Amino acid sequence: MEEKFMKEALKEAKKAKDKNEVPVGAVIVLNGKIIARGYNKRETKKNSLCHAEIIAINKACKKLNNFRLENCELYVTLEPCTMCAGAIIQSRIKKVIYGAKDEKYGMAGTVANVFELKSNHKVEIEKGILESQCSNIIKDFFKVLRERNKNK
Amino acid sequence: MEEKFMKEALKEAKKAKDKNEVPVGAVIVLNGKIIARGYNKRETKKNSLCHAEIIAINKACKKLNNFRLENCELYVTLEPCTMCAGAIIQSRIKKVIYGAKDEKYGMAGTVANVFELKSNHKVEIEKGILESQCSNIIKDFFKVLRERNKNK
Repeated sequence: MEEKFMKEALKEAKKAKDKNEVPVGAVIVLNGKIIARGYNKRETKKNSLCHAEIIAINKACKKLNNFRLENCELYVTLEPCTMCAGAIIQSRIKKVIYGAKDEKYGMAGTVANVFELKSNHKVEIEKGILESQCSNIIKDFFKVLRERNKNK
Repeated sequence: MEEKFMKEALKEAKKAKDKNEVPVGAVIVLNGKIIARGYNKRETKKNSLCHAEIIAINKACKKLNNFRLENCELYVTLEPCTMCAGAIIQSRIKKVIYGAKDEKYGMAGTVANVFELKSNHKVEIEKGILESQCSNIIKDFFKVLRERNKNK
């Protein structure tokens, strides 16, 4: 079940890759159904807020007409940054499932864990679902980027 | 100069109060001019992302057509939460000036300081500008709310 939803998050990540964005994708699941999707659009939208998770949370709030995404689970291919972790807390998401660790900026346990800071809402965290696929899509993206820049 | 811009952030907070939202307001300043404004609209928009800072950052990115808000300063009446602190880092804002501490959820030094976590961008922080006005507008809001609920 978890792999099934992470595969959907990976599909979103591939959409980002096709637009030359760092390939990160997310889906939000409620009662076993995907209610919102998102992929990184920071460069396309020229907007620092347009991470996969923020786009998915925005859509889910609109869909449920509620700022509380209680009982929702968020699947994301890469460990959330501070902003996205904060948005997950603010929206009362029940559980976050992420694929690859972010060794540089991961704030759900790798660099730090902002989910452990004092808060009025506790989020469950699970990691490592389809880890290598989630990690490889990003590694490959940066490898291609480096080679492209080398040949310039 | 700083008080002048915090007064503008307070004007935004008052707009939130008039809509029965927790009164928090923000303005973003570039080269001595306000380029974006925002106030808390979480309840009105039924959206967890609609904090004053996020709304202002979204507008500033659109205005500058850039996800990097370099050299921008953000004035906000209340100490940022985790989400907003993360958004400030993501958007490369140079400096944050806040009015009142948030004893419960303030993540710029009071409960914790997420700006000190490992990051590719360092943000300057200044606090306490028009502190009592920024604090009182929130205290008064919750006082009225409590009295209203008592009489229900």
